[in-house]
Amino acid sequence: MTTIKDIANRLGISVSAVSKGLNGAPDISEELRTIVLETAVEMGYSTKRSRKEEHRRLAVFIENMDYESPSDFGYDIILGFKQSAFKQKWAVDVIPVTPAMQLEEKYDTYMLKHGYSGSFVLGFTLHDEWIKQFATTNTPTVLFDNFVSKNQNVAYVGTDNREGIDLAIEHLVKLGHKRIALLNGTLYSMVSEQRQDAYNAGLIKYGLTPDEKLTAYGYFMASATKDHVKSFIDNGATAILCCSDVIAASVVDECKLLNLSVPGSISVVGFDNTPIADEYGLTTISQNRIELGKSGYVTITALISHIGISSTLMRPTLVVRNSTSVCKE
Amino acid sequence: MTTIKDIANRLGISVSAVSKGLNGAPDISEELRTIVLETAVEMGYSTKRSRKEEHRRLAVFIENMDYESPSDFGYDIILGFKQSAFKQKWAVDVIPVTPAMQLEEKYDTYMLKHGYSGSFVLGFTLHDEWIKQFATTNTPTVLFDNFVSKNQNVAYVGTDNREGIDLAIEHLVKLGHKRIALLNGTLYSMVSEQRQDAYNAGLIKYGLTPDEKLTAYGYFMASATKDHVKSFIDNGATAILCCSDVIAASVVDECKLLNLSVPGSISVVGFDNTPIADEYGLTTISQNRIELGKSGYVTITALISHIGISSTLMRPTLVVRNSTSVCKE
Repeated sequence: MTTIKDIANRLGISVSAVSKGLNGAPDISEELRTIVLETAVEMGYSTKRSRKEEHRRLAVFIENMDYESPSDFGYDIILGFKQSAFKQKWAVDVIPVTPAMQLEEKYDTYMLKHGYSGSFVLGFTLHDEWIKQFATTNTPTVLFDNFVSKNQNVAYVGTDNREGIDLAIEHLVKLGHKRIALLNGTLYSMVSEQRQDAYNAGLIKYGLTPDEKLTAYGYFMASATKDHVKSFIDNGATAILCCSDVIAASVVDECKLLNLSVPGSISVVGFDNTPIADEYGLTTISQNRIELGKSGYVTITALISHIGISSTLMRPTLVVRNSTSVCKE
Repeated sequence: MTTIKDIANRLGISVSAVSKGLNGAPDISEELRTIVLETAVEMGYSTKRSRKEEHRRLAVFIENMDYESPSDFGYDIILGFKQSAFKQKWAVDVIPVTPAMQLEEKYDTYMLKHGYSGSFVLGFTLHDEWIKQFATTNTPTVLFDNFVSKNQNVAYVGTDNREGIDLAIEHLVKLGHKRIALLNGTLYSMVSEQRQDAYNAGLIKYGLTPDEKLTAYGYFMASATKDHVKSFIDNGATAILCCSDVIAASVVDECKLLNLSVPGSISVVGFDNTPIADEYGLTTISQNRIELGKSGYVTITALISHIGISSTLMRPTLVVRNSTSVCKE
């Protein structure tokens, strides 16, 4: 374990200067502080994990995900995380992240500089610079819907996507559907891969045959829906399983434009159970986002206590509304 | 939600008689008590999950797993579970289970009768009667190394077996081994399947080809080792990856009988990091059993609070001792 003294020896400065650098004391130059922080990170120094109450701070980093309004996907996740953290006297800062910010400063340096004991990371993609750094970080870090292997300081929290897709397919199969299309999220994301695998496995389990013409990636963008809906229907789909409620709502809109009634002519299932699902009357797979946030907190505190959790998965549930009905074909 | 009044109405008896039956009051016949309990379970009644301190009781059910001595696999798991539970004022009963006991009384009835708020279940197999009942139980239940789908009251806790096998294969590949055998545990168990899949995927990842002649099931029994070791060596194995330390130790013994030095002629890797691994100097994949027990406790309390955790996986770690070395072939 690297100590403050080790850092002082390496830099040839006093222990108190290192301590000032780590704590951001006002009487030390910004230049020296940067050198101290970068050397500390390079030497694998990590701050004391158990802190006095007045210094207990956690960061929530968020990118590519809306979270400011209660109807946004990230809102309840952050709310659940904060509810649990506040009960145990942790302060929580929510920090929007950009690719530029990640190139500017190393993750561990950022965490050390700002005195965070750990972070909860939402919406990052595999291209993010910090995602690469999570493979070797010394800082307790919980990733929502992302997985990093073989690092005891990092854990994954999410919904069991396989079970979610299986619940949706089971529901549609019971209604007599045999041509079930999948409008997935972003290509090359872990979550999309899990859902694609579960879709194929689920169809086979219920005696149906996966058909490439009935799967596409919608990139969580409503604008990507139009062409896919037309193509699915031309290829005989009687039900469309969408990987978000926003996508499902845009599928319902597109069906209306094509004069197809939902669920009369085509059944539509969403994912997430965000407020738009209620508004559109969507049958959907619910991710309990308050619980996801709470689990994020439970997991980060485990990592801070050196308990090596690898992943915590939550149960999805099926919420049946009015966008699915018996197949008439 | 079924209430005590519902049960009283169904049975045509008073609320106080039902209450006495549920609580095992002395002034009610055993016969009436059985009827009350069975009716309560049949109607989906579940006891209040948050109880007064003096009534907070959890059960640990254990079968097919040694746990009484510190060298036994189950010992530390139960210890970790108890340590966490006692801190939060839960009493814990450890209950050895037999197939006969499971046929005698339904799981939910047993839990209700004995006033347990939840249980942690170790060592059950897919043939166990209660495993079938876990699919629909109303009682918070955490399964070690077993998974039940689609029931919000049941969660799975275990080590990330895929990562464990990958760590072992990575270690052996770095030492130059190309013919790596797998001596797996019990056929048709979830854990064995995960390890078999991870073994195949791991070999392919490192550019090697899986060979059926290099895999076998040892059923966690040292006596099953003999023939497999001979066969692996005849088929060119230079390393044997075993799914428990007990099996690995018996492989080492068998190699001695065959005049093969470990690790000079053949490398051996265990799994679990139980005390026998230390005694035999085995390189092994460590399951931190204290942490597994603590995670079992954290997960059962989440289920009791209606937080629908599906699974909690722990990170394995590689512990290098003297049973592996550079491949000389």
